[in-house]
Amino acid sequence: MERLQNQMVTWRRDFHKHPELGFLEMRTASIVAEQLEGLGFEIQLGREVMHPDFCMGKPDEKATAAHFEWAKRHGAVEKYLQHFEEGYTGVVGILDTGTPGPTVAFRVDMDALPVYESETDNHFPNRNHFRSINENMHACGHDVHTTIGLGLAAMLSEHKDELRGRIKLIFQPAEEGVRGARSMVEAGVADDVDYFIASHIGLNVPFNHFIASNNGFLASSKIDVSFKGVASHAGGHPEEGKNAMLAAASAVLNLHSIPRHADGATRINVGEIHAGSGRNIIPDSAELKVEIRGATTELNEYMKSYAEKVIEGAAIMHQVDYDITLAGEAISAKGSPELAAIMHKSAEKAGLNSELENNSAAGSEDATYFMEAVQKSGGYATYCIFGTDLAAGHHNEKFDVNEDSMMSSARVLFEAAKTLTHE
Amino acid sequence: MERLQNQMVTWRRDFHKHPELGFLEMRTASIVAEQLEGLGFEIQLGREVMHPDFCMGKPDEKATAAHFEWAKRHGAVEKYLQHFEEGYTGVVGILDTGTPGPTVAFRVDMDALPVYESETDNHFPNRNHFRSINENMHACGHDVHTTIGLGLAAMLSEHKDELRGRIKLIFQPAEEGVRGARSMVEAGVADDVDYFIASHIGLNVPFNHFIASNNGFLASSKIDVSFKGVASHAGGHPEEGKNAMLAAASAVLNLHSIPRHADGATRINVGEIHAGSGRNIIPDSAELKVEIRGATTELNEYMKSYAEKVIEGAAIMHQVDYDITLAGEAISAKGSPELAAIMHKSAEKAGLNSELENNSAAGSEDATYFMEAVQKSGGYATYCIFGTDLAAGHHNEKFDVNEDSMMSSARVLFEAAKTLTHE
Amino acid sequence: MERLQNQMVTWRRDFHKHPELGFLEMRTASIVAEQLEGLGFEIQLGREVMHPDFCMGKPDEKATAAHFEWAKRHGAVEKYLQHFEEGYTGVVGILDTGTPGPTVAFRVDMDALPVYESETDNHFPNRNHFRSINENMHACGHDVHTTIGLGLAAMLSEHKDELRGRIKLIFQPAEEGVRGARSMVEAGVADDVDYFIASHIGLNVPFNHFIASNNGFLASSKIDVSFKGVASHAGGHPEEGKNAMLAAASAVLNLHSIPRHADGATRINVGEIHAGSGRNIIPDSAELKVEIRGATTELNEYMKSYAEKVIEGAAIMHQVDYDITLAGEAISAKGSPELAAIMHKSAEKAGLNSELENNSAAGSEDATYFMEAVQKSGGYATYCIFGTDLAAGHHNEKFDVNEDSMMSSARVLFEAAKTLTHE
Amino acid sequence: MERLQNQMVTWRRDFHKHPELGFLEMRTASIVAEQLEGLGFEIQLGREVMHPDFCMGKPDEKATAAHFEWAKRHGAVEKYLQHFEEGYTGVVGILDTGTPGPTVAFRVDMDALPVYESETDNHFPNRNHFRSINENMHACGHDVHTTIGLGLAAMLSEHKDELRGRIKLIFQPAEEGVRGARSMVEAGVADDVDYFIASHIGLNVPFNHFIASNNGFLASSKIDVSFKGVASHAGGHPEEGKNAMLAAASAVLNLHSIPRHADGATRINVGEIHAGSGRNIIPDSAELKVEIRGATTELNEYMKSYAEKVIEGAAIMHQVDYDITLAGEAISAKGSPELAAIMHKSAEKAGLNSELENNSAAGSEDATYFMEAVQKSGGYATYCIFGTDLAAGHHNEKFDVNEDSMMSSARVLFEAAKTLTHE
Repeated sequence: MERLQNQMVTWRRDFHKHPELGFLEMRTASIVAEQLEGLGFEIQLGREVMHPDFCMGKPDEKATAAHFEWAKRHGAVEKYLQHFEEGYTGVVGILDTGTPGPTVAFRVDMDALPVYESETDNHFPNRNHFRSINENMHACGHDVHTTIGLGLAAMLSEHKDELRGRIKLIFQPAEEGVRGARSMVEAGVADDVDYFIASHIGLNVPFNHFIASNNGFLASSKIDVSFKGVASHAGGHPEEGKNAMLAAASAVLNLHSIPRHADGATRINVGEIHAGSGRNIIPDSAELKVEIRGATTELNEYMKSYAEKVIEGAAIMHQVDYDITLAGEAISAKGSPELAAIMHKSAEKAGLNSELENNSAAGSEDATYFMEAVQKSGGYATYCIFGTDLAAGHHNEKFDVNEDSMMSSARVLFEAAKTLTHE
Repeated sequence: MERLQNQMVTWRRDFHKHPELGFLEMRTASIVAEQLEGLGFEIQLGREVMHPDFCMGKPDEKATAAHFEWAKRHGAVEKYLQHFEEGYTGVVGILDTGTPGPTVAFRVDMDALPVYESETDNHFPNRNHFRSINENMHACGHDVHTTIGLGLAAMLSEHKDELRGRIKLIFQPAEEGVRGARSMVEAGVADDVDYFIASHIGLNVPFNHFIASNNGFLASSKIDVSFKGVASHAGGHPEEGKNAMLAAASAVLNLHSIPRHADGATRINVGEIHAGSGRNIIPDSAELKVEIRGATTELNEYMKSYAEKVIEGAAIMHQVDYDITLAGEAISAKGSPELAAIMHKSAEKAGLNSELENNSAAGSEDATYFMEAVQKSGGYATYCIFGTDLAAGHHNEKFDVNEDSMMSSARVLFEAAKTLTHE
Repeated sequence: MERLQNQMVTWRRDFHKHPELGFLEMRTASIVAEQLEGLGFEIQLGREVMHPDFCMGKPDEKATAAHFEWAKRHGAVEKYLQHFEEGYTGVVGILDTGTPGPTVAFRVDMDALPVYESETDNHFPNRNHFRSINENMHACGHDVHTTIGLGLAAMLSEHKDELRGRIKLIFQPAEEGVRGARSMVEAGVADDVDYFIASHIGLNVPFNHFIASNNGFLASSKIDVSFKGVASHAGGHPEEGKNAMLAAASAVLNLHSIPRHADGATRINVGEIHAGSGRNIIPDSAELKVEIRGATTELNEYMKSYAEKVIEGAAIMHQVDYDITLAGEAISAKGSPELAAIMHKSAEKAGLNSELENNSAAGSEDATYFMEAVQKSGGYATYCIFGTDLAAGHHNEKFDVNEDSMMSSARVLFEAAKTLTHE
Repeated sequence: MERLQNQMVTWRRDFHKHPELGFLEMRTASIVAEQLEGLGFEIQLGREVMHPDFCMGKPDEKATAAHFEWAKRHGAVEKYLQHFEEGYTGVVGILDTGTPGPTVAFRVDMDALPVYESETDNHFPNRNHFRSINENMHACGHDVHTTIGLGLAAMLSEHKDELRGRIKLIFQPAEEGVRGARSMVEAGVADDVDYFIASHIGLNVPFNHFIASNNGFLASSKIDVSFKGVASHAGGHPEEGKNAMLAAASAVLNLHSIPRHADGATRINVGEIHAGSGRNIIPDSAELKVEIRGATTELNEYMKSYAEKVIEGAAIMHQVDYDITLAGEAISAKGSPELAAIMHKSAEKAGLNSELENNSAAGSEDATYFMEAVQKSGGYATYCIFGTDLAAGHHNEKFDVNEDSMMSSARVLFEAAKTLTHE
């Protein structure tokens, strides 16, 4: 046990030191694949578990190729790396006990954030020499999630005889920006799952505490909008231009003026606009970054479809072309109380203070796609939180967790696996 | 001659006392028809000389029927009145000399304005008991134009033997708002015309002065826009509405922001907006009155087609329906110098101080449709101005002319007719 | 008791037949005053109980004078009518038992709506010959409220010896549009009140049912906005105008784009816009009717103060003047549980099925000003609902109640008065 | 003469190879200063001839310091360079003949453009090894202007005895973006000038042709606008932000909707907008680059002051701060016919085909400030064009002139100097 504990710290610090952005988790995924296979898991890699049409906000070929080289130079496991060359970095490990029983799935996410990690002495990873070696940072704990997943794999492997049915460990890319889950669901990863458990560390839950069912996720769509017009000399021939900025400005005002919906909270924000290429030129291009949220999938959908009409209309107004790209999307979800009850007991067995449910609004998560898929086909799903001590808030340059939370978290999941495969 | 002079004053005061709005000149037209036929002109009436599809801003059936009753009660000539019952109030009189020669056309307009005429003592028509008996007023001199047309008819009839070819007198409805000319042109009234002369009294040209070719008319389109959405309780269910006011407000801002054209002056004005039915109801309707102008037909067309896209886009933005109705339209035109030269000489023969050309911007006129049609088929066209003393500006409640200008104006046109039919 | 029952029906039908709009309840108020004085109440009238500076959306002098004449002609009690001539139509009746005890206040409202009452046979008031004799209608039950108030007065008067302390009956004008309550509160009407009970009939609560504490009122501000610019000929001299419509259109879009508040529901609606005076004239005026709501007073205030900046900025943009008039305002409020408990028991005593509390959003009410004032000075307040059978929804032309609900409602209030004056 | 011709080619190619942007013409100015002093001119440098308060769009200290180092490393004349260290790079050379006579001033401009020069073989400067050594380019011929100025200085120096009065050679920085002239005028450089001649090469005038008076410059203001609000999490606390993007979008639409002016052409273009820092953050900043133009100074001023109100109002609407910086400005001007006549003759003396006047719209020029100042104090001013063969249009990466035009241009100015100093 202590060996596994040490191993987990080693894993975590290695992942932390080598953070990789969404759809670029090549090094991480190669190590995960190697470990799982070593522990007797059947592994499914890359396109096998990700539908290319549903990867949102995926980096372009050039960035992907460049990171592939980086991964090669920084300790990726060559044998598996090739499967991730195009940026399909999902890994699924299956442990089949050979006995009848349900399929229980656990999802962890692997990606880091474009945050420059703190270089101060009081930042634990820096002091202990596992600060990020690049410009990114595991500032949301996904290094820990990956580690918990591997720790759980080790426990499952060791205690395979105590289990029944099948265990599926899902290592998901690109949770940040809610971009990666849907492609795994569309590839069928959730199709045979009877119980699905996603989990997250931190989120202001105290050390040694546990939430068995975190609800309150907002549905969200992130869209990139571009308007394409025609440039012209603004002094000489304004009438020859097609002004993409006027379309964009009209869109901005009208997006923000979409009528509020009576059924619950909605949000829309145009977070960025960039348009035009020079003071004296009719702007021929404009780019918007938009985020939409709704308390439910329906509310989010209401906002999104209204937004699409606003954008279409703005383009027509000024006779410019437009393009809308989905850069991320998540739905809302509600955990299954039956499964929450089991997680609650599992946490108590593992020695944690557990709470059954938490409903306060808590950002967006694309694990909701898995939850919806599993529930739709008659299964059960929940989203748990592992409490820990946080050095700073999520996405902060000084974010850090208490590493002692990792083993207990893996324990909760292991206890749940045991219980669930005997249901 | 003095008899005709007196007759003209009588006509003018009768028309002035009974002003009729555009497409409702039923009484006026019936009198014109009777006079022309009496003078030996062949007459063409109503739909014969007006294409129904091109009447713009025509009053609705109810208003037309009501005015028909009014006309009956107020001295319309019953025999001709029936031809104008549906509001097609155009009259064309043709004097065929039976000898070979060109066709020379003169256009006068007959409609009045919705201006409440002054009741003060120093207002000549009031003092002399021919103030308007209804809510409208001949505040632009079209009563005088009609009178000049009839005076000219009398002269032509009397001196028919001095003429050759054919003379066509065109009495046009609905010049105000530039609504009536196009329907006459589309009905073919200009097809056989070799020389076309339109004329106007006043326009700040002094008494006894004459302009042989007034150019500088702005092309113009008047459009009525309506947006139709869905009402909903704004507090209870805002999302169930389709907000026509948001579409309209976006249209207003973007119509005014259409890029200026480098080739010359353009104008756009949303003169009126009315939207919504109650403070707490999502507005389901919005109405705009828009006026567009351009120094040339092309510039006006640039503005108009851009405006149509703005309106379409605004409707799409907020998922409402829209409708654009053309409530008036005029093109730009340039007089034919050859014809201007002849008019110039005719005016001098008639004892007026004549100027060949005036190019300053001068509002809009739909006689331009006749001018374009005649010039396109190889003919010549011009637009003349008869100077007079004005008691107040055009469209003012105290507008009045010097009645002595009427006879000399008719004389100029008669001299021109003599010269032109011998060309 | 049966005598009172009959009297209440008579009162109700008389009020129903003579509906009066807000601040014009002259006839109604004069009858109320006469009855209260007859029953031994001390009465306070007009400006005594209304602060002129806080009457919102009050009709102008001309409309007020005209209605005064109407009231005189239609059975107002002359002796009291003069106090209401200027449209300050509030009445307060005080029954002082002469024994020590708290002051208990009941509020009823008296105004009608500009709804044209149904003339169909199946409409009970029409069939029974007490349909409105003018263009307005008691389509929200305030005729019934006034009647319940008078019935309560009769019971209190008869059983004065069973009471202690003082009873205050507040007959409020102009509740529709939330315009009248504040002026009574500012005049000090609530200052000496220990217990305050407002009530409403209907609101989808079933017959013989009762709600002891209706919460969930939305705070709301109704504002009228006018922009005043300078007219100019849009073709000739656009630059000489100051375009009030551009200011208004910018305001409309930006009012609707005020960022949503995280703490709860907010609403804003520009329900009407009227701007401009002619197609070809730069619009020199624009009028907006705006309604703002918030789940709490703070949320409403957030929206309102943001809206004021939007309007100010829009005016500056186009160099026009602006004016904002408050046409109505209500705050949110929360009933006192202690008082609700007593009302609950009083309703059970009166034989009704009572529910302690209802929290669903329920429009706006300006009784909230009384509630806030009483609670602030240490008193208790609640808002009750009397269930009934409704013939049609509130504000509908066929609205009607079951008259049997009137007596039981008065009974509930009487029971409460007995209990509360002994607290 | 041939020696001077060769010298001029050498100068021109050296300047061309070392292009310097506006207010950074340190190397160029140091060479100009050395040459003028060597030729017997009294020189005035830097702040002596530039008022710091009127330098528009001046690079910041860091960029200025960096370029100073570049100039030092690339052949600037150390002795003079120090005067230009802070970016005040104007040079005035005065040749006083000691005899009574008028003061005649010639203005040339020295700055280059941020254009990356063509590297193709058919580009003459590249083929002949004087292509720019940095990222900028003399793509508007100011290298040639500076050379003509020095050539003129050499001629004047050699023929000083043929002259009377005083000759003033004004080497102006930062003509591009119309940023530098005003600071020299405000420093008094034009105060003692009787005749002022500005000139430009190219502008589509053919080789060996000359325009004695180019009018039709548009007045123009270039403004940079920044809105500064408050960022906030758009999902969590939208109400805590102050949205600079909404202010900016409203400004964009309303800037474009400023009513057209009847007196002549106006233009406004928001050429660039950049706002916001992330999809999910209420944008706390927005930057606009705006260009305004008018056919006259008054028209430009009308647009500019309206624009300032739009920006102020937009900021107030969304409660953000704003800042407007003038990044360049030019007025309109009309050449003095008397001086044009003399330039016309001087050009003919120098063997060029001269045209007296050209009035077509021709962009903006800040030499107009000198022209206005000289004319206001009773002097004469004109703006001339030297025709040449252009390899490509102005501001194009392949722009080049026929170097044979340089000597003849200097000759025209020299002839004018002779004539004018004897006036």
